[in-house]
Amino acid sequence: MNRKELFQLIQKKRSFLCVGLDTDLKKIPQHLLSTEDPVFEFNKQIVDATHKSAVAYKPNLAFYESMGSRGWVSLEKTVNYIRTVTSDIFIIADAKRGDIGNTSAMYAQTFFDTYDFDGVTLAPYMGFDTVSPFLEFKNKWSIILALTSNKSATDFQYIEDKDNNPLFKNVLKTAQTWGTDNQIMFVVGATKAEALTEIRSIAPDNFLLVPGVGAQGGSLEEVAKHGMNDHCGLLVNSSRGIIYASAEKDFARIAEEKAIELQQEMEIYLKDFGLI
Amino acid sequence: MNRKELFQLIQKKRSFLCVGLDTDLKKIPQHLLSTEDPVFEFNKQIVDATHKSAVAYKPNLAFYESMGSRGWVSLEKTVNYIRTVTSDIFIIADAKRGDIGNTSAMYAQTFFDTYDFDGVTLAPYMGFDTVSPFLEFKNKWSIILALTSNKSATDFQYIEDKDNNPLFKNVLKTAQTWGTDNQIMFVVGATKAEALTEIRSIAPDNFLLVPGVGAQGGSLEEVAKHGMNDHCGLLVNSSRGIIYASAEKDFARIAEEKAIELQQEMEIYLKDFGLI
Repeated sequence: MNRKELFQLIQKKRSFLCVGLDTDLKKIPQHLLSTEDPVFEFNKQIVDATHKSAVAYKPNLAFYESMGSRGWVSLEKTVNYIRTVTSDIFIIADAKRGDIGNTSAMYAQTFFDTYDFDGVTLAPYMGFDTVSPFLEFKNKWSIILALTSNKSATDFQYIEDKDNNPLFKNVLKTAQTWGTDNQIMFVVGATKAEALTEIRSIAPDNFLLVPGVGAQGGSLEEVAKHGMNDHCGLLVNSSRGIIYASAEKDFARIAEEKAIELQQEMEIYLKDFGLI
Repeated sequence: MNRKELFQLIQKKRSFLCVGLDTDLKKIPQHLLSTEDPVFEFNKQIVDATHKSAVAYKPNLAFYESMGSRGWVSLEKTVNYIRTVTSDIFIIADAKRGDIGNTSAMYAQTFFDTYDFDGVTLAPYMGFDTVSPFLEFKNKWSIILALTSNKSATDFQYIEDKDNNPLFKNVLKTAQTWGTDNQIMFVVGATKAEALTEIRSIAPDNFLLVPGVGAQGGSLEEVAKHGMNDHCGLLVNSSRGIIYASAEKDFARIAEEKAIELQQEMEIYLKDFGLI
């Protein structure tokens, strides 16, 4: 999916919602634990309930890996299921990978060839080598960590160079030289919404993947106000606030309600911005 | 395994060799492709041939993930096999993970609980949150990227702050405040051997995992000269130079020879340093 198609999808669904599939056996409703593949069964019902309100899904790889090969089977089934339910969707592997060239090439193969993801999150510490193999895949996206939503993001991301540029700005600037805004997105935490204006001055056209709305305390309104551009330019993720809104048998219905709530709020901002 | 036990293992085997299991279906001998699990079959024979010369193995996760859940099965079997062959071994998941706290906790569970690894490589970009869940496991190791061996390591790792400290030195300094040298190692590329003296002045006691000897051009002699400390403090990795030294039916025997060659060279440096 290229940038134009992603924007069309956002316009069509009146939503820039990404649903995070951080599926944890300890948190899903108990009645699912007796099914053959509880993780997949949970994801299936969440996808059925939310795919009309969401433009993207983001399985968080850690949650699948923690179950070993069995978890990867659940992940495979989830990605395949999403693809059969709808073609109007963008799927992100939240993997935060990053390694030297020949290794990154294997990761790129994993997510874009073995699995049919549209984008993958990448850690920038090792530089261009880390990202370049992913850029060779057409209509696929490298989603690079810039300013993250966690408390200790300050440990290194705010270290300023001699020209007063913090590391995250150097990442934003340098990574734009690696590929186009049809290939590269950035991760920017919603808890740093005030920083979005500055980020937009450095990366006006790139899509931003924004986690941290909801459980982590970020405000959707602030994110839209400071981060939206003329093609929306935002994918706002909510994980726990949707998928764990209920731990009972009604979990899918409640998740649907929560997703619709966010979609409706997003629709307002898209209208305010004159994008729909 | 704690630091003392790791040093005792190095003394016993007269080696600080780590064998990288970057097992790639495109590179392993053709005759293995007809076996039920070629990746495991290859690893098994490599482990049989090299475990007397090596103190550590380092499966590179990307190579397993690229085959999806099937690759994770091969990884599981490999780790279990190494544990049955010998108790005198340190196993590293070369995963370069790093995420916010609740996600990192799942990764820690993956590598230290679901799988029986001794250490895991971690990317520092997101700061302390990334590492803290791994530190909660006793006698397990967080192996943090400091100065990597790839060309584009310079993109960010050499950016100097206002006190002329490049990012990799800030990582070395800050990460030492997170845990002890019984918990934290650093990744330092062998292609940057000249930087090891400086790194040792910042992190005198931490073990360093040093990739890049062999195929990537680093010199073992230089690494030992600049990086060794009073408990060795080095795990030097060789992957392609050992496991792909031959692509024929004799691959395991040739791998054994290559591992012994490195072990014998390491024995000289350990003696020179008065450590054995």
